[in-house]
Amino acid sequence: MKLYAVIMAGGVGSRFWPNSRMEKPKQLLKIFNDNTMIQDTVDRLSKLVDDENIFVITNTVQKPFIVDQLKNIPKKNIIAEPFGKNTAVCIGLASVIIESFDKDAVTITLPADHLISPKSVFHKTIKNAANYAYKNGGLVTIGIPPTRPETGYGYIQIGESSSEQDIYKVKTFAEKPNVGTAHRFLESGDFLWNSGIFIWRVDSILEEIRQLMPDLDDGLTSIRKHIGKSTFDSQLSQVYGQLKNISIDYGIMEKSRNVYIIRGEFNWSDVGSWEEVYNLSKKDENGNVLKGDTYVEESFDNYISNDDKFTAVIGVENLIVINTPDALLICDRHSSQNVKHVVDYLKMNKKSDLL
Amino acid sequence: MKLYAVIMAGGVGSRFWPNSRMEKPKQLLKIFNDNTMIQDTVDRLSKLVDDENIFVITNTVQKPFIVDQLKNIPKKNIIAEPFGKNTAVCIGLASVIIESFDKDAVTITLPADHLISPKSVFHKTIKNAANYAYKNGGLVTIGIPPTRPETGYGYIQIGESSSEQDIYKVKTFAEKPNVGTAHRFLESGDFLWNSGIFIWRVDSILEEIRQLMPDLDDGLTSIRKHIGKSTFDSQLSQVYGQLKNISIDYGIMEKSRNVYIIRGEFNWSDVGSWEEVYNLSKKDENGNVLKGDTYVEESFDNYISNDDKFTAVIGVENLIVINTPDALLICDRHSSQNVKHVVDYLKMNKKSDLL
Repeated sequence: MKLYAVIMAGGVGSRFWPNSRMEKPKQLLKIFNDNTMIQDTVDRLSKLVDDENIFVITNTVQKPFIVDQLKNIPKKNIIAEPFGKNTAVCIGLASVIIESFDKDAVTITLPADHLISPKSVFHKTIKNAANYAYKNGGLVTIGIPPTRPETGYGYIQIGESSSEQDIYKVKTFAEKPNVGTAHRFLESGDFLWNSGIFIWRVDSILEEIRQLMPDLDDGLTSIRKHIGKSTFDSQLSQVYGQLKNISIDYGIMEKSRNVYIIRGEFNWSDVGSWEEVYNLSKKDENGNVLKGDTYVEESFDNYISNDDKFTAVIGVENLIVINTPDALLICDRHSSQNVKHVVDYLKMNKKSDLL
Repeated sequence: MKLYAVIMAGGVGSRFWPNSRMEKPKQLLKIFNDNTMIQDTVDRLSKLVDDENIFVITNTVQKPFIVDQLKNIPKKNIIAEPFGKNTAVCIGLASVIIESFDKDAVTITLPADHLISPKSVFHKTIKNAANYAYKNGGLVTIGIPPTRPETGYGYIQIGESSSEQDIYKVKTFAEKPNVGTAHRFLESGDFLWNSGIFIWRVDSILEEIRQLMPDLDDGLTSIRKHIGKSTFDSQLSQVYGQLKNISIDYGIMEKSRNVYIIRGEFNWSDVGSWEEVYNLSKKDENGNVLKGDTYVEESFDNYISNDDKFTAVIGVENLIVINTPDALLICDRHSSQNVKHVVDYLKMNKKSDLL
């Protein structure tokens, strides 16, 4: 069994404005340490997947930055989609490419911008899932045991046990719940967070696409014969223009009868907002996270990231302050999901230099 | 009777960092409109004092900016002290200079950075005070009827009435009070805010200095004979080195028996903090004061001044945000008196480019 990774790195990450921009979304930023999030994602795969078996699916804008950040990954493995068409299409494309040289490949499909620790538990989970997927041909997703009634994540309800420890049939997928439902999910004990990490054999996922997404299957078929040829890019553009924007959850996972879930007993976050970055960061004795040249007086529980210039804060609490060379965000910590409204405003007002 | 003005413009204004700097303190900034505060101070004197009778006492750092901002004032009237030596020395210097060409001059001495309105009431008060000072030779100060138990101002207790309406003998000067005392002052009705605006004949103030501040009188005597000569600056430096740093309140007003107060029934503020600037500024329907390119969402009662770059605020209240090209301040509105601590910090840490 040979393991491959498919890193999905197409997101625009408007919730991390002003650090994130069209060409530098969250996965390309150094948020928690001196590595960017996609660099951490690749590091996390080391000793599990060989560098030459790691593939990144991104877009033309981000591709040069990713090539630059991931020097150990073969450049040909970093593939730009002509348009973003959601995860089902992205996964289909990666699968036919990998299938073209390894029909027995087992792939780990995962987003580029999640925070996961410790690595050892992550590896153990992936290995168990990969063994199961290799042997049984199932589609395995990782579910994270919830630690709070989070309304920002999708949930998956576990069903009957499989033959393997910690691997279950999936009973239902549930969209992001309201608070009451999230509490019920948490208390029930049989709902796990949908991590968006999938493990399967390429032939398994391609067979599911064949059955459940025949339009996508047709598209992939017409791409297949151009793989490795000079006609690939133009064929991709032509086919992508006609494909539907559908998530793998909606297109396959919620419909297939061959879906399994493994408990991921590691710390996991999709790092969906500046508030979440604050929650996941190490605080000083006043509950502050401070980056850059900052004077702080009587201020508590703030996240202050300052790439630009000397910043003084006095008497403030629960703020997110992001100071970049060309834009400044000051946001109540608990309102940080509204940062995307700023991006909407900038688009509406054609301030494209700040996007 | 010929009226002269002595505008005291030596303050460093650390409470308005990061807009105010060593070379650009509050009086040289555009805080409320398109004029700087010293320009507004000069405008307020128009039709009361001729431009050639307006004198500005400042320091060598600020002088070129003031010359630039006050193009209608003769350059020779803008005088740089070699060292800041507080108001008694500043006033003594201005007085001997004006006395040198007009022994009957009546001077209005006033700070460069106060906010006063309406102009008509200010003029009426000054004229009454000047007439009284001209006829009776008294030292007249303007007291502002307090509108709140302010602890940031000095107070003056009025004594018996003079022969003129609204002009009283001064009973006592009181330093900045604590909250309880400020309430008593407000309720008593006979304490007025010390505006720091003085009206007197130059011969009157120089006679008081002769009697009450003989050291300063000696200094002024040795300056007098160099006025208008090439030796003036070097003589000034020599004499100033030996003079004591004493305020006019402490050196003269609190000791003289010849001190009067006139009620100034105009709106007055010494604009002592960013909070005060917020209080004195016109707010939008959400209580915000917004300057510069700003996106605002669910934010109330903030003062946001943005000279630098696009700024987005979300879900915040009661903040002072001052965004300049090389420094950023974010301060709770009610903590804005602590802004001077940032200046102390910058001095301690030798960040002189931000001072």
